[in-house]
Amino acid sequence: MSRVTLPIEQGMDDQLPGIIERVGADAVRNSDGTWLPEITPQLGVKVYETYFPSRGDQDFALAHLHCRPRFYLMSERVTAGEQPLAIDIMRGYYALQVEPDLTDVERWWEVIDRTTGEVVGADGWSVAGTGADVVVTIQHPTPYHVYTVSFLAWQSWDSTQMYNYLTNNWQDDPTRVREIGYDVREPEVWDFMQSSLRSWCEARPGVDVVRFTTFFYHFTLVFNDVAKEKFVDWFGYSASVSPRAMEAFEAETGIALRAEDFVDEGYYNCSFRVPTPTYRKWIDFQSRFVAEKVKGLVDIVHEHGKEALMFLGDTWMGTEPYGEHFASTGLDGVVGSVGSAATCRMISDIPGVKFTEGRFLPYFFPDVFREGGDPLGEANDSWLQARRAIARRPLDRIGYGGYLSLATKFPDFMARVEEICDEFRSIHELGGGHLPKSAPIRVGILNAWGSLRTWQTHMVAHALWYKQIYSYLGVLESLAGLPFELTFLSFDDARAGALDGLDVVLNIGAAHTAFSGGDEWLDPALAVAVRRFVASGGGLIGVGEPSAALANGAYFQLSDVLGVDKELGLSQSTDRYPVEQPEHFITTDLDDALDVGEGAGDIFAMGRATQILRLRGQSVDLAASTFGKGRSVYIAGLPYSPVNARLLHRAIHWAAAQEEAFDDLVPSNPLVEAAVFEETRKVLLMNLAKEPVTTRIRGVDVDLAAMQSRWLDADELG
Amino acid sequence: MSRVTLPIEQGMDDQLPGIIERVGADAVRNSDGTWLPEITPQLGVKVYETYFPSRGDQDFALAHLHCRPRFYLMSERVTAGEQPLAIDIMRGYYALQVEPDLTDVERWWEVIDRTTGEVVGADGWSVAGTGADVVVTIQHPTPYHVYTVSFLAWQSWDSTQMYNYLTNNWQDDPTRVREIGYDVREPEVWDFMQSSLRSWCEARPGVDVVRFTTFFYHFTLVFNDVAKEKFVDWFGYSASVSPRAMEAFEAETGIALRAEDFVDEGYYNCSFRVPTPTYRKWIDFQSRFVAEKVKGLVDIVHEHGKEALMFLGDTWMGTEPYGEHFASTGLDGVVGSVGSAATCRMISDIPGVKFTEGRFLPYFFPDVFREGGDPLGEANDSWLQARRAIARRPLDRIGYGGYLSLATKFPDFMARVEEICDEFRSIHELGGGHLPKSAPIRVGILNAWGSLRTWQTHMVAHALWYKQIYSYLGVLESLAGLPFELTFLSFDDARAGALDGLDVVLNIGAAHTAFSGGDEWLDPALAVAVRRFVASGGGLIGVGEPSAALANGAYFQLSDVLGVDKELGLSQSTDRYPVEQPEHFITTDLDDALDVGEGAGDIFAMGRATQILRLRGQSVDLAASTFGKGRSVYIAGLPYSPVNARLLHRAIHWAAAQEEAFDDLVPSNPLVEAAVFEETRKVLLMNLAKEPVTTRIRGVDVDLAAMQSRWLDADELG
Repeated sequence: MSRVTLPIEQGMDDQLPGIIERVGADAVRNSDGTWLPEITPQLGVKVYETYFPSRGDQDFALAHLHCRPRFYLMSERVTAGEQPLAIDIMRGYYALQVEPDLTDVERWWEVIDRTTGEVVGADGWSVAGTGADVVVTIQHPTPYHVYTVSFLAWQSWDSTQMYNYLTNNWQDDPTRVREIGYDVREPEVWDFMQSSLRSWCEARPGVDVVRFTTFFYHFTLVFNDVAKEKFVDWFGYSASVSPRAMEAFEAETGIALRAEDFVDEGYYNCSFRVPTPTYRKWIDFQSRFVAEKVKGLVDIVHEHGKEALMFLGDTWMGTEPYGEHFASTGLDGVVGSVGSAATCRMISDIPGVKFTEGRFLPYFFPDVFREGGDPLGEANDSWLQARRAIARRPLDRIGYGGYLSLATKFPDFMARVEEICDEFRSIHELGGGHLPKSAPIRVGILNAWGSLRTWQTHMVAHALWYKQIYSYLGVLESLAGLPFELTFLSFDDARAGALDGLDVVLNIGAAHTAFSGGDEWLDPALAVAVRRFVASGGGLIGVGEPSAALANGAYFQLSDVLGVDKELGLSQSTDRYPVEQPEHFITTDLDDALDVGEGAGDIFAMGRATQILRLRGQSVDLAASTFGKGRSVYIAGLPYSPVNARLLHRAIHWAAAQEEAFDDLVPSNPLVEAAVFEETRKVLLMNLAKEPVTTRIRGVDVDLAAMQSRWLDADELG
Repeated sequence: MSRVTLPIEQGMDDQLPGIIERVGADAVRNSDGTWLPEITPQLGVKVYETYFPSRGDQDFALAHLHCRPRFYLMSERVTAGEQPLAIDIMRGYYALQVEPDLTDVERWWEVIDRTTGEVVGADGWSVAGTGADVVVTIQHPTPYHVYTVSFLAWQSWDSTQMYNYLTNNWQDDPTRVREIGYDVREPEVWDFMQSSLRSWCEARPGVDVVRFTTFFYHFTLVFNDVAKEKFVDWFGYSASVSPRAMEAFEAETGIALRAEDFVDEGYYNCSFRVPTPTYRKWIDFQSRFVAEKVKGLVDIVHEHGKEALMFLGDTWMGTEPYGEHFASTGLDGVVGSVGSAATCRMISDIPGVKFTEGRFLPYFFPDVFREGGDPLGEANDSWLQARRAIARRPLDRIGYGGYLSLATKFPDFMARVEEICDEFRSIHELGGGHLPKSAPIRVGILNAWGSLRTWQTHMVAHALWYKQIYSYLGVLESLAGLPFELTFLSFDDARAGALDGLDVVLNIGAAHTAFSGGDEWLDPALAVAVRRFVASGGGLIGVGEPSAALANGAYFQLSDVLGVDKELGLSQSTDRYPVEQPEHFITTDLDDALDVGEGAGDIFAMGRATQILRLRGQSVDLAASTFGKGRSVYIAGLPYSPVNARLLHRAIHWAAAQEEAFDDLVPSNPLVEAAVFEETRKVLLMNLAKEPVTTRIRGVDVDLAAMQSRWLDADELG
């Protein structure tokens, strides 16, 4: 019994010991809306219980409405006519969630002419109304310019609880209230949080692990006037603001923050925006503050002989686990939802904690565990994704969430859970606690965020599919199961020399975004750093619109290195004669066309020196070039698939000029991946497919059943 | 016998009178490589003969190599290492066409750091070599910056003759030479041109019309190192340069031109680039000079009792027929190749000439008139395209080119030519010389070029298909056969109030281009002018990426008016709930999906007020909005088809709030178009399809055979 956490609930006392035994669970937890049964202490396992520091005590919340958290919001864009312009700032917002904060509006609100970008002075506008009816009137707008009002607002409803409430129709349940949060920045809140946690711990001697869900500031989640999601950014800090915090920031940094620092033209600094220095300072400032407060809570937990576990999500702003202040929290572990291999690595790679835990899909919720649902299929999909990542860098623990009583109605599902748990444990056991062998190629992902957003690039909301991201996320998803040491580095890191420690660097994403880099590429120092790196023998892999910023006759500022550029219509007077030369080390396992997803479209080779490996119409989907002593690969897009992951695997070796290191422990069949544990002389072969496959590895043919993983002794191989 | 010109040649004397009779030709011409037969004077028709002012006398050319025309070219982009950087400027160029002009390179050449855009001073580089082996060495380049050399070069071979020579393999014909041109800017050339033309006219008393092919400066056409086309821009002026001209420009304007004014980062000011003020001044300057010289030649032609006809193309830079200096040339007519309805209108709408003539396709050339060729099909396609345009604004004349002896081997083709000529003449006869009725809606096309490029937007090379243009050219192609008065106006015109004279304005094209407008939209005055126009009751139709320039939270700067914007990835945190409402006046004749060609992709509605008429996935293909008293329509792309033309027809009426004026003389079937001649009470119905159709018009059902046109008396209709 080890490494597995199971959700339990009341009313299953007879079944619980048997289930725990079969699954091999060594810990149990409650879920949102379930309570631990009285039998719990007799189960002989660790006990987790969920704790919400910044909501849940509605009496306190109602008595301290001035302590509610706030967020910065922008009104609709409204075009002025010849008259004074009245803007109904709440138009499109959800009055149950949003209440404009009318305190000191001249200081905290901002009216901006979005045609010119100029701020309208506070003497140029006035505010009338209260509650959900607040109108800002601009007395003398420039006719036919577009205006917005950026305003600070109270969060009248905790975002996660609002989401759960609306999703589960709790309005029909008279026992449910709309929970209101409270901002840790207020001293009375902080006092209350500490004393509440103390009381809570004292009242729960049987709880071993306090599962914080989460801490203080919610990611940005705003609903609209018909109570549907309006804006979601899993990385957003615009709900972490308050006058008190901004004044503290100014006292420390000398920077008087503007509403626009958060509203950001309406993009709210979503992680696709190249972050401003001020915004990064804010993240750092809040993270330091949050870490200090988290440490305070963790200390209380420890004082009570319990462990402190953080759920990675919801109210997690300021506790980003790859941030520099995270280790100072003293947290014992992090648990997060595993939605893919990349999100699995996002959890398992977290430095500075004693353990990481992945919450697996599917949740034991009625949306899946119903007549006609396919919990078994979802469990298989989830496991196939996660196993690749776990084989590279294992989570310490796995677990499930939801209502166990639902899951037990699906015996085939429960049987599969048992297998998965056994398979998971075998990686720890047979791997001997070591990491599998990696290729001697250090790979870096270059973007505006750098290490802070390790494994978290190109995401809007946690692991959700978006048309504009899947062709880039596939690179991360591929890498999550490939044998490379990976670093996420920022453009600043690159300028400061961090490329020196790498063999291959990747720049991935759409033009204008933080992940591709946007105008960062107009700084010659950045392009020079990458060119010097490649010219000296490094490898560059560009995916999508790498280094894109239209200037000086190029769109891809590294078009000279990549050997390709994108046609925007301005250079179509130039004739091109693309010729595909499909045979290459990189394409060895690619039978036909490359699936580039949304692709990049209209990519042309800079000249005959560029080897076009895949051409679709007149557009280059895949190309290889040399530059000085180094090499480059261009890929138009790379949705995840086993074949695409294999292509990337090869591309990295080729870019590093280490084709020979693509060693004989890579299975011949791209549907199979291997993890080689040198210390234990064990090789884990994993069939990524839902059908049986055969592969050759070091001269030996191996059959694998559908989805099967199989351990071989390295000595058995030729 | 009227309005038709036929190419004739030697060796067909017996057949010629009969053919001329059947076709109804009243003029004959020679073609490139054919000579008029001795029987010509007896044919009783006008005689055209081709004349090349700036090439053709190889003895003169060889004796005046210093008078060859020049062009500005850019070297490849080359990345510097740590050493001095040697750039082989001729790399990629065709040595038989290009010879670097080594005169005063410090003044006329330019070395640019394309990483920063900075110019490298002339003391920083040196030139070595001659002929095709010229190397520029930059002594101290910034390591890992990209450099180019812009250089002035002689045109060693006339571009059109080079094209014909290489295309027709004249290298195998010992009688052919590589013709060298001469620049009219040189006084000795100008003297020679005048005297040559005088002698030529005197030697040809039987020639009635001198067909200039064309005048002095070729559009930009550069070949590569394997003698294939490298760069083509039918509107390019980079081959109109010379030190003498640039010095004259400086003397007049005070502007010392730089190589970069022509090289333009390697885009060479192709017509998709938003033109710089200096470049527009250069066009004006050269056009004035060219017009003056053309006038000199036209005067000579007139002195000899002949007419002067200009071929619209080849060496036509400076004689753009919608330019303000064109009328001063005194030319009697313009003849041009009809490749589409839009190019037909480009010719027939030319102001200030006595006649216009369209050269129809196919050419009587062996590429089509061969075993397995389909000259009849090409003639039908060409006529179906052109007839729509001719019905709106007739060409005065039509004609053919090539070798008549080839065409006569295809009797069904010749029979079709007879029908086409008759049908063409009927429009003049039954229309009574009047224009058909137009809707009371004045339509403007808004772009950076304005009236100068009337009917010439979105083209790379004359009427050739390019992936990046067909979705926009379709708008022009549609309009060429629709009953609207059309104006092409520039952004400057719009700022100066020209929108006041319009009912509906269109902005069409891809982001960053002159046709959409690029950074012009960052000038608030432009957006304000359009917003004021629409708010006051005007209509705006945007196609593709109208008003696109990423700034201040919007990509389409007129997103407030258009009701849509484009997702670049930065605002995907905003949730959208697009709902298609397909029923609308605009979509009445559209059965199913709209073909938007390359479309624009990822277009979202700004809010619920935008009516989404066609949605593809989550992207808006067609939308309608109101703005103040006006209306707007967004179309993602509009390749030409009869159904798309009808959609545009309706969209314009709706945008103008003139649905009721979409009168009952519009045929019910979108495959049929009508031209209503009020003065003669005649209605021309045209079947655009190659199959029979039925349509209803003003309550009457009419059958039309495949491709048929049919004249009705207006009084016959209900």
